Amino acid sequence: MPPFLPPFSDKSKVVPSLASERALVSFNVESLSQFLHGEGFEKRRQIRALVEQEPVFSNADKPFLSRERQYIRSLEKLAKLVELKRKHNWSWDDLLVAFQQTGDFSSQYLHEALFIPTLRTQLSDEQQKIWLPKAENYEIFGCYAQTELAHGSNLRKLETTATFIPETDEFEIDTPTLNSMKWWPGALAQTSTHCAIYARLILHGKDYGVHPFLLQIRELGTHKEMPGIELGNLGPKIGFNTIDNGFMRVTKVRIPRDQMMMRNSKVTREGKYIPAKNAKMNYSTMVAIRASIIKNAGFSLGQALTVAIRYSMIREQGGDRIPSQKGRELKIIDHGMQRFRLTTSLALSYAMLMTGRVMAELHRRNLNNVIQGEVGMMAEVHATSSGLKALTSDLATAHMEDARRSCGGHGYAWCGGIVDIYTTVLQDVTVEGENTILHLQTSRWLLKTIMQALQTKDLSSVPSGLRPSLQNQRILEQEKSTIVPGKPVTGDDLIAAYWHREARVLQETLTRILKDGGGEEAMAKSQVRMVELSRTHGEGMLVRNFYEAVEKEEQAARAQGGDISKGYLPVLKMLAELHGLHRLIEKSGDFTEDGYVSRDQVVWCRERRDQLVDLLRYEIVGLVDAFDLSDNQLNSALGRYDGRVYESLYDWAKYGMSITEKGKNGGVLGFDEVLKDLLAEGKRINSAASSKL
Amino acid sequence: MPPFLPPFSDKSKVVPSLASERALVSFNVESLSQFLHGEGFEKRRQIRALVEQEPVFSNADKPFLSRERQYIRSLEKLAKLVELKRKHNWSWDDLLVAFQQTGDFSSQYLHEALFIPTLRTQLSDEQQKIWLPKAENYEIFGCYAQTELAHGSNLRKLETTATFIPETDEFEIDTPTLNSMKWWPGALAQTSTHCAIYARLILHGKDYGVHPFLLQIRELGTHKEMPGIELGNLGPKIGFNTIDNGFMRVTKVRIPRDQMMMRNSKVTREGKYIPAKNAKMNYSTMVAIRASIIKNAGFSLGQALTVAIRYSMIREQGGDRIPSQKGRELKIIDHGMQRFRLTTSLALSYAMLMTGRVMAELHRRNLNNVIQGEVGMMAEVHATSSGLKALTSDLATAHMEDARRSCGGHGYAWCGGIVDIYTTVLQDVTVEGENTILHLQTSRWLLKTIMQALQTKDLSSVPSGLRPSLQNQRILEQEKSTIVPGKPVTGDDLIAAYWHREARVLQETLTRILKDGGGEEAMAKSQVRMVELSRTHGEGMLVRNFYEAVEKEEQAARAQGGDISKGYLPVLKMLAELHGLHRLIEKSGDFTEDGYVSRDQVVWCRERRDQLVDLLRYEIVGLVDAFDLSDNQLNSALGRYDGRVYESLYDWAKYGMSITEKGKNGGVLGFDEVLKDLLAEGKRINSAASSKL
Repeated sequence: MPPFLPPFSDKSKVVPSLASERALVSFNVESLSQFLHGEGFEKRRQIRALVEQEPVFSNADKPFLSRERQYIRSLEKLAKLVELKRKHNWSWDDLLVAFQQTGDFSSQYLHEALFIPTLRTQLSDEQQKIWLPKAENYEIFGCYAQTELAHGSNLRKLETTATFIPETDEFEIDTPTLNSMKWWPGALAQTSTHCAIYARLILHGKDYGVHPFLLQIRELGTHKEMPGIELGNLGPKIGFNTIDNGFMRVTKVRIPRDQMMMRNSKVTREGKYIPAKNAKMNYSTMVAIRASIIKNAGFSLGQALTVAIRYSMIREQGGDRIPSQKGRELKIIDHGMQRFRLTTSLALSYAMLMTGRVMAELHRRNLNNVIQGEVGMMAEVHATSSGLKALTSDLATAHMEDARRSCGGHGYAWCGGIVDIYTTVLQDVTVEGENTILHLQTSRWLLKTIMQALQTKDLSSVPSGLRPSLQNQRILEQEKSTIVPGKPVTGDDLIAAYWHREARVLQETLTRILKDGGGEEAMAKSQVRMVELSRTHGEGMLVRNFYEAVEKEEQAARAQGGDISKGYLPVLKMLAELHGLHRLIEKSGDFTEDGYVSRDQVVWCRERRDQLVDLLRYEIVGLVDAFDLSDNQLNSALGRYDGRVYESLYDWAKYGMSITEKGKNGGVLGFDEVLKDLLAEGKRINSAASSKL
Repeated sequence: MPPFLPPFSDKSKVVPSLASERALVSFNVESLSQFLHGEGFEKRRQIRALVEQEPVFSNADKPFLSRERQYIRSLEKLAKLVELKRKHNWSWDDLLVAFQQTGDFSSQYLHEALFIPTLRTQLSDEQQKIWLPKAENYEIFGCYAQTELAHGSNLRKLETTATFIPETDEFEIDTPTLNSMKWWPGALAQTSTHCAIYARLILHGKDYGVHPFLLQIRELGTHKEMPGIELGNLGPKIGFNTIDNGFMRVTKVRIPRDQMMMRNSKVTREGKYIPAKNAKMNYSTMVAIRASIIKNAGFSLGQALTVAIRYSMIREQGGDRIPSQKGRELKIIDHGMQRFRLTTSLALSYAMLMTGRVMAELHRRNLNNVIQGEVGMMAEVHATSSGLKALTSDLATAHMEDARRSCGGHGYAWCGGIVDIYTTVLQDVTVEGENTILHLQTSRWLLKTIMQALQTKDLSSVPSGLRPSLQNQRILEQEKSTIVPGKPVTGDDLIAAYWHREARVLQETLTRILKDGGGEEAMAKSQVRMVELSRTHGEGMLVRNFYEAVEKEEQAARAQGGDISKGYLPVLKMLAELHGLHRLIEKSGDFTEDGYVSRDQVVWCRERRDQLVDLLRYEIVGLVDAFDLSDNQLNSALGRYDGRVYESLYDWAKYGMSITEKGKNGGVLGFDEVLKDLLAEGKRINSAASSKL
């Protein structure tokens, strides 16, 4: 077991350059933290304390572990979490919080957050009675086996088959070709004993499409592959190497008919297919997962920024030629470009957190409706969550990478603390729906909704901000932005601008698609514009949701007689304005192209953006502290709470050397292996040459 | 030694989906390849053949090696390259080509490309006689020790000292604080015996600033640390883990005075300082390194695109609902968004290659001038290379990452082939001048040049495209783009547009800086705009250089009586147009803000961009094949020449399993270690619960 290294910050011994920053924050960081983390704030702290007592959760040696050792460690953490869960009677939500506190991933997450929910939503009540206790108590370990070597996002084309055998009342599961091997499932390579396998249901020679089945893949007690099952590990990835992503070849393996997951569709003893009554429930699970990715995008970016912003308040470099500096170097946060990139990224991370909050609320409302048979919201909620998942995972990873770069050389080192979280979150652009495909889904929904509304003249299903432009086509040309140069830009100004832009992009895309015939073929031709449309839609939502979340909080504060001109609310409002302005300027062509935003207005937007970055200068450390990430979660020499950056880098490097491979005979790695002979040969050649002289 | 696995492509057995693509390419790929690689094309092929005979150069097991084993392998490769160099009498250029053919980095590159050139440019002739043969024959191994733990880009603030000791005619080298430890130098941790150390020269108590010294750090023969030297490895990085980046603490270590590097500045026996006569030569080395980073940006992106484009012609997914597809899936390259992102990236990689070519030529001309005492070009060439290094490394890495994502899940796996090159090239945004700092340098040069020109009314040093707007301030407002909707956009249209945009950004930036007083303080306030200005300057150069390189080649072809309407030249011209248009659209606000580009024009630009992507559809495989990257360089299951993607992924995964750690007792990794007990406990709990029922 590694020590908790680098040692946790002593909160009373913060380096002066960071302590002085914290003293200048205008709001109470703890209050903002409670707002961000919501009701479970106290419980979260308790769970963190329990986790941080256990040495197995120290991430200090993670950078130095081989992939295989990272995996073993993740299993040790898993076993300890199971123990803690039993001991403290944790709920599933508590366990999720504990996962987060470990600052790391393990296969357990896949078992708990993918496999068990699949059993809950796909197994019939009778089936659940058999399988759920086994899974919940870890008598079996499961994963979700859907993707195949040559088949990913297009579920319709999976090749794995489950053929009903009437004679024995069984299904025969088969991956008939190399290309149809299951490929990628996490926890499949080594950890799982069972899986939810997605296969084409074949009844009496007829293909009924893809359905889930429960398949045992390893023998209990020995963990050997079951007959007909070949399992393997697909190798290292750019990140997420604690997880054993694997492959599986299944050669005509029989399972009882009752291991088809029969909550929705069913097959009778006679081999008769009974289709699902309500398939919408599945969409609801997808929405929930996507909402969590959106929130996670905000927090992950927040983690990278916690590192980069704290470090930027300690690192000093350059600026010593500015006369007022009198030869002293500036903190790098006081270089305009550094402050600009980090502050605008911070505004984005808050925008994503607020949107995650609004989405989760929407999901809860929608779920209640669905349970009561009301599926009216479903299409919009599903489409919205798709595009937002794509947009936020794209933006979060791009800005995390920018934060990593903003730490210079130390950001390139694993101990800098951004590498691990960045490379892990990178998967979010691909998993749970590849981003381009998701953008196209959102756009398709938007276009179809509009086309239908234009035909029926009923605009009720059209997003509200787009209705005016549909009622009066000409309004777009006449509209002018309400931004007033010299004055703060309001939420109304920004929200209107983003709606206008979306209406314009929509109009252009729709016109083109209708010109091309309006069908699948036409849409296929306009993919680039459709992706742009979905991004536009999502960016507008980020802006609106940020303002909406802040206003809701303001109302709540007012209702309690609070003073909303103080505390964190005015700061969040500045962040919301900065966020809206920044994207507007980055994509200014979208707003100026048709003259909606004038040259004077865009010039002012840039000016105002600079002002906001300056106004937020002494708030940003409070804004990252409020994410409330522990030193062990951050696992970063640069981002630790106490700011002891350089000592930590040095201590950590030495610790790493003490636990990694030495050279042959205990010497310098590489010397006895190679360098000794190479250098001796060089000496021989030089001696021979000089003796010739 | 690993086998060459996955086995090299058999060029006669290319999968049909890729072979059919190649059959449609309109130009001779070999000719384009010769154009891209220049004169050494044949020699390059010979060297590749030699390299590929040696099993040590196989990269097949690299994904599965620990960091320590990657390092040992890199040393084995180094020893073999030294052997081949001696055997075949390779020149330094040949060695460089051989490095490239290995598709991997080793410390050797730092010794050969940083340490030895430092000896050449910094040691006096007498000193070179002693040290160069030692270094060239690997009697000693050297690295370049400049950066410190708390000091990077700002050379002026390095803390390491070299104090002259008159009594013994020595320098005492010292890193007086933790923060001044040397930190980051490649090959410092384990490989080097010597280093070029940068330290403040102290003579009789007076500080003469930073100078280079030659310091022995390990004992020859034993490789033990020399007295007073502490060495270590700083740990894992996001990439580049074949290299032993290290740290060094030096405690009052004496070296003879003659180990100050005295080609430029000197110190006499009496401790008198003789300053350098011509410090500009050093800038010239920097220009050369940056020119190579620019070219490397083009080729590295080209490598990622070779993988992504070939794979996109094999992978089929979705589109099966488009009526004309009749239920068949599309190749992913035939999805508009995929084709768009990869084709525009390809245009960028060619733009960077052409700019690298123009820069290298400029460097050669400038170097000749400098040798003859002419330093007139130096400031512009240096400034230009700075901003372009920053711009191209930013763009290349962003587009490499996009290419990785375009490969979906398989792009996330190391065996996909983009992870290694991407994470390695990521360092280019930080090394050899951190990108933001470089952009600021370029911008500072540009602004100072303009300010001076405005004062002196002598515009001769101002870049030509900016002169009109300086001669007549009002011209900017009146100018309108010459782009004609419905017609191909010409090089002249694009070049003028980029100049106009630069002039506008320049004007805005300059106005603001002058308003703020025009000095260092004012520039510090305008960093965000200054970075934008440098990017704008660089983007214009990419556009111009692309056209310039193609036109030069057209002239050469015409001179030889060739038909320039055939072959690869028209294709390159389309790429140049696509590249110029794409950036214009991406930053359309920059062009439309002042009305220079009208709405109709920008709408047409988007339309024309789509056309070009379509026109290039059946050329792109030829355009990536022309990079002429071997299967071993690519080291990618997705990008291999023969397109046998899925077999390769499977074979490679199985091979990886055969060489990586097994579980205790030879079982499944993790089972005996953790899972066995966990699952047994689960069974016990469930049995106890059911027996209670």
